[in-house]
Parts: sequence; C-alpha cells; structure tokens
Amino acid sequence: MNLKKTIENIAKEAKEASRVLSKASTEAKDKALRTMARMLRSKVSLIIHHNRKDIAKVRSSRLSKALIDRLTLDKSRIMEMAASIDAVAKLPDPCGAIDKMWKRPNGLVIGKMRVPIGVIGIIYESRPNVTADCAALCLKSSNAVVLKGGKESINSNIAIYGILQEALKKEGLPEGCIGLVESKDRKAVSYLLQMDDYIDLVIPRGGESLIKMVAEQSRIPVIKHYKGVCHVYVDGKADMKKALNICINAKVQRPGVCNAMETLLVDSAIAKEFLPEIAKRLKVCGIEMRGCYETGKLLSNIRAAKESDWREEYLDLILAVRVVKGIEGAIAHITKYGSSHSDAIVTEDFSKALKFLKEVDSACVYSNASTRFTDGHEFGFGAEIGISTDKIHARGPMALEELTSYKYIIFGDGQVRK
Amino acid sequence: MNLKKTIENIAKEAKEASRVLSKASTEAKDKALRTMARMLRSKVSLIIHHNRKDIAKVRSSRLSKALIDRLTLDKSRIMEMAASIDAVAKLPDPCGAIDKMWKRPNGLVIGKMRVPIGVIGIIYESRPNVTADCAALCLKSSNAVVLKGGKESINSNIAIYGILQEALKKEGLPEGCIGLVESKDRKAVSYLLQMDDYIDLVIPRGGESLIKMVAEQSRIPVIKHYKGVCHVYVDGKADMKKALNICINAKVQRPGVCNAMETLLVDSAIAKEFLPEIAKRLKVCGIEMRGCYETGKLLSNIRAAKESDWREEYLDLILAVRVVKGIEGAIAHITKYGSSHSDAIVTEDFSKALKFLKEVDSACVYSNASTRFTDGHEFGFGAEIGISTDKIHARGPMALEELTSYKYIIFGDGQVRK
Repeated sequence: MNLKKTIENIAKEAKEASRVLSKASTEAKDKALRTMARMLRSKVSLIIHHNRKDIAKVRSSRLSKALIDRLTLDKSRIMEMAASIDAVAKLPDPCGAIDKMWKRPNGLVIGKMRVPIGVIGIIYESRPNVTADCAALCLKSSNAVVLKGGKESINSNIAIYGILQEALKKEGLPEGCIGLVESKDRKAVSYLLQMDDYIDLVIPRGGESLIKMVAEQSRIPVIKHYKGVCHVYVDGKADMKKALNICINAKVQRPGVCNAMETLLVDSAIAKEFLPEIAKRLKVCGIEMRGCYETGKLLSNIRAAKESDWREEYLDLILAVRVVKGIEGAIAHITKYGSSHSDAIVTEDFSKALKFLKEVDSACVYSNASTRFTDGHEFGFGAEIGISTDKIHARGPMALEELTSYKYIIFGDGQVRK
Repeated sequence: MNLKKTIENIAKEAKEASRVLSKASTEAKDKALRTMARMLRSKVSLIIHHNRKDIAKVRSSRLSKALIDRLTLDKSRIMEMAASIDAVAKLPDPCGAIDKMWKRPNGLVIGKMRVPIGVIGIIYESRPNVTADCAALCLKSSNAVVLKGGKESINSNIAIYGILQEALKKEGLPEGCIGLVESKDRKAVSYLLQMDDYIDLVIPRGGESLIKMVAEQSRIPVIKHYKGVCHVYVDGKADMKKALNICINAKVQRPGVCNAMETLLVDSAIAKEFLPEIAKRLKVCGIEMRGCYETGKLLSNIRAAKESDWREEYLDLILAVRVVKGIEGAIAHITKYGSSHSDAIVTEDFSKALKFLKEVDSACVYSNASTRFTDGHEFGFGAEIGISTDKIHARGPMALEELTSYKYIIFGDGQVRK
C-alpha cells in the first residue's frame, strides 16, 4: 500500500472512531485513561528499551545535547507521563457542558453545548511524551487523534502507541481513537495535511520552521504559535524589588521555553537606576546582554544589539535590552517586534497598568507578574495541549475546552417562524 | 499599479486601521455607525441611480430573475439597510467584555477579555446590502473589513462604499476601516486570499461554488457553510398538529434559504398516518415531493427519489421524503447525508428528544421547532454576519461576539514562577 493511502486509512479510521467517542460516557473515557496510565507504568523497561534505540541513532549523528535530553525517557519521566494521564482522567469532561442557555420571547430555549471537534492532528518533533499527553487530552475531550512525531523518536513513539492501543482494546474503545503515522518519509506530513475530509484541526508543536511548513501546506485549520518573543517592560513607576524579581524569573528560571523573556524594555525615567542593578544580577546568572545605544551608555562591556536582536527568540542565556520612552515607547516596540505571545508591565501606576493590559495585543498580557506563567497548568486548566498566538478559535494556553466546539440545542414546543 | 499591489495596499491599510479601531471608544464607533445610517438615508436616489446601472447590465445578459431581485435596491430596501446599521449601533460592544475571571492559589487574577480579531475579509455575491451590513458589524466589533462583492453589483457597492467612507471621514476614523476591492478581475479574489500577513479571517457568503473556491485557495482561516441540507424527523411519538405545522413552516415559509427543510424523515411507525396528511398540505403549497420506495407505496403520484436527492439543497419548492426506522434510522440518515446545518426532531418522547439533541452533530439541533429559526436575529444576537457549519472558532449563526477573539489579562503583585 502506498504512503498516501496508508495515511488516508489512518485518518478515515480516526473519523469513524471519533463518532464512537462522541457518544462515549465520561466514565468509559476515564477508565480507559486510567488503564493507559497503569499499563505505561507496568511497561517502563519496554519503553526504555525502545527509547535507547532512538538515542543511539541520534548519538551517531551530530545533533545537539538539548535534543538528546528532550528525546530521553527514563523511569521518572515515564512515571510522570503516566501521572499526567491520571490527572487528565480526573479533570471535568468538557463535552456536554452547557456554556449558557437563554429563552427567546417566543418561548424557544436555546443552549450552547460543548461538543468534540472530531479528529485532531498533532505534528510534533522529538519529545516522545507528547505522544501520551496528546492522546490523553484528545481522548478525554472525545476527539480522535492522529499523531505524527519526529523521526528521531520513532521507536519510542511506536512503543508508547502500542501500549495505548492495548489499553483501548482492553476497554473496548476503537483503535482508531489514536492513530500514529509511523513513516519517516517527509511526504507523510504533506499527505496528512491534505486530509481535510477526515481531520478537523491540526496543532503543530515544535520549532518555527516545522510550524511554518505546516501552516503553509495545510488544507486543514491550524492552531499554532511560531515563537515567543516575550517582553517585560519596567516602567518609571515600578517597584524596584518586584521588577528585579520578575525580570530574573522571566529570563532565568527556564530560558529555553517560549514564555521566557527575550527582550527587556526599560523606561528612560529609571534606566540609570535600574539597569546597573539588573545587569549585576543577570551577570551572576550567566546571562549575556545585548543593548541599545542608550543601554550601552549606561552599562559598560555590553554588546550592541542589532535590529535583528529585537525579533530574536534566543531560547538561551541571552537578553536584548532597550531603553524606551515610557509606556508609549514600550507598547510601540512590542507592537512592532513582538510575537503576540506573553508580555508584561511592571508598574505601581494604576492607569499605566490598565493601558498596557488593554493596548498590548498579545495572547497573555501581565501586570506585575512573570511571563513564565503562560501555561495551562499555571492558569488552572490542569493540562495543556499547546499555546496559540492565533486569534481564531483559541488563544494562549490551550487545554480541554479548546479541544471542543459547540452546538446550539433548541427546545421548542411547536414554534414556527413568522 | 498592478492588481496584486492594489489589493495588498487595501489590506495593509486595513491592518493599520484595525490598530486604531482596537482603541476606539464604543461611543466613537456608535456615532460613526449612526452617521453612516443617516447618510445612506439622505442619498437614496444616488444609490438607486448606480444600482440601475448594475441592473441594466444584468438584464442584457441571461441571468435569472432571482439574481435581479437580490441585486435590486429600492427606497425601502435602502431604508432597511440604514435601519439595520442603527440597530447595530444600539447593540452592546463585544470588545473589552470579560467572559470570566478567576483567582489562582498564588494570588494571580486571570481574566478572559474579548478583543477584535483584526481584519476580516468578506467575499460575497450579488446582494449590495451585504456591503453595508458587514461594514457595520465589523466596525462595531472594532475590526477593519476588506469587502469583495460580485461583479454584478459593482456600481451599487462603490456607491454605498463611497457613502460609508464619507461617514468615516466625518467622524475622524481612518478610511482603511472599510476597504473595497473594486476590480472585476477574477484574480482579485485569489490575490486577496493570499494576504495572510494582513487579513486575519475570511467569511465567504454565497453559493456553494464560491465558498468551495475560497476554502481551497485561501491561506487565511475561512469560516463558512457550504450548504444547508436540513432535516425534520417526525417521530412515531410526535404530536401530529405540531409536526404538520413545523414541516410546513420549515419547507414553505421561505424555501430559498439555507435553513429551510430539504428532506423530511418520517418514522415508519406513523408513516401511514402522517404522510397522506402532510402530502395534502404540501400539495396546496405547490411543493413537489420526491419519495423513497416506502413513501411511494403510501402516496400515489410521487416521483421516486434518487440517491442524489438525499444530498440535494434544492432551495426550491421540492422536498425529499424518506421513511426511516425510528430515531436510529433518522440519525443514521442525517449523519450520512446531512450538511451539519440545522436538523429537527418532532416528538413528545422525552428520551428520544434528548437523544436526538445529543447525537445529531449539527450546528443547530431542534426539538419541536422549525429549522427556520437558525438566524442571528431569531437567536437574539441582534444581527448576523453569516452561518457556520465549521467546528473551528464559530458554529451556527455568527454575530458580533463571533467577530472577536480573546486575550488573557493577568493581574499580579510581583508573582514569579517557582
């Protein structure tokens, strides 16, 4: 069978399974999730065995340490994977929830009911835990899922997939609920993105180039974020202690993630006071600063920032720094260079805080808190399937509710239209 | 200047205007809307003058009466157009509304705030009133709009657009708020659909072929419905009087629209009783029935339905009729042949009504009411920019809220992530 046909069959089976899932009870779904978690726990050594094959292959090529770290599964990571499936089982079922309900003058009662989207395609890179996480979130929200992971993690993915399939079988759910495209052929993704008859939504997870490719080729709606060029703006009226804490946290706590600060904006009114202090602390943390001309005048030994630095998602121990003229300058910079992900203001000035929250057009806008909170768990969603910087369907951290659509259900007693 | 560049400039100007609009006050937007309505009223004869040119052109070609009717503007239709802009001015502003707000254990307060999407592209056919309606809805929701109407109504559209521009100018809003692509070149739509850097969402309004073309060519997210093959299922436990009224209303009240019934499904348990009665009434209304084999046995002089009839959106005085085995048969038929638009059950049986509401996967699912209620006004939205059978972003009747996205605003007092 050729590749295109194979993928079409996976997608078609997913569509059929999604119909069964849309009628499955919360109890049945949760039971299947708990079985998945239990079986993953009982097959730790099998997963590690297959994961080693992936690592061996990557070692022989010249890929980065970070990649090997993302790829590696050990006992504790597999236990975490299982624990997060159990956690998803405990979350409320989003399907069937009625968001609102109202009565019309003619007596019709209209309700807005959450329903599954249908079939979700997930295209991801090397993290094998995504396989289990996404399968669990889709199952809980009554969506079938078609997974296409990176070729580096193919053996790990097949092993995890096999275990999830066993659990589905044990619980009497169709195997189409979770599909895995096993091919390493680059064309597999292109074929998948043409299956708009069967797949309703695609969520790509990975680097900017993967996401661009998916967005360009897809005939299916895509929800995505390209990158997180997150800003913290320290206003002239900032509490200095809060500002220092927030900036260090936003940059240093985990620099390699999309909600970490990449550019620090400092009000010219306090640059002289604030910059030397933050520079001292950043240096201790091993952060390299790249500053604008004004920053250079205030700090010695600072590398000059180039125009391209303002658009850079370093994901590294590097920070771009710019002195701006007050909140207007900060908003103008963010509007021009930002990625609409997460941006923060630090200020004790009420009106400026509200102005920033209102005018910055990003998925998450913070006043006096670290951008690092942009995360489904931190928002209280209990899980996360991704973060969106799009404005269609879902924005910001996405979890179970974002994996649903809605339908209107109308209760009448014979009404006809006049 | 070449066409592509012209369209790019319109889209770019719209993007810039959308930034101004996102900060405009409700008062300023409403004032502009009222000015638009007033100016349309004061220029009735100018609009009619240009509309006559369009009609003259269409008359000389061999297009249908229905098209001429859709195209024609007279004084009362222009007054209606103005009145509906005034009505939009009176609706609540969706932007800035906080859908929900919650507190996290660490003290962060997170709110979900409605924001405009940005730039909306509307691609439509011959109705010139769409120009004013869509411009008003987009302006009220702080979105800039790029309009591309059918070539048949080009003179009417330019005239209306000119008046709306005058109103924008008078009220100090940028002219980019409302853009009109005047070209009759077929490539104009293709170019528009490539402007994903500037246009955030496209809503096509018109026949199935237009919508298919837009969906296939667009690099921008599209929200749409292809067609409305709506069903009424008359259950064995139906109240006969309600069933007759609902079926007649759903088919006859306005047969040419997407929420009219195209297929009647009758439970075999009451077919013998119900079919002759409804056939008598449909005949009086001039409706031609096309029936399945069972229907043919119960009614004489019925044309046999072909397989293709079950998928047909007649938009005409024709009705497909099928006898099904109870609610399971009805749901199976709708799942196979339906268009996920609007479907109704007529029954006094509580469990069956709930089963139908739950299991039929359509944008609007009715119990004991006519499918004709699928409409923004009838739902109480005060307006309508279209109907969606998609599951991403918006489903069913779409109005102001569906023209918005959201952002998370987070109030902290120094929180950092642990």
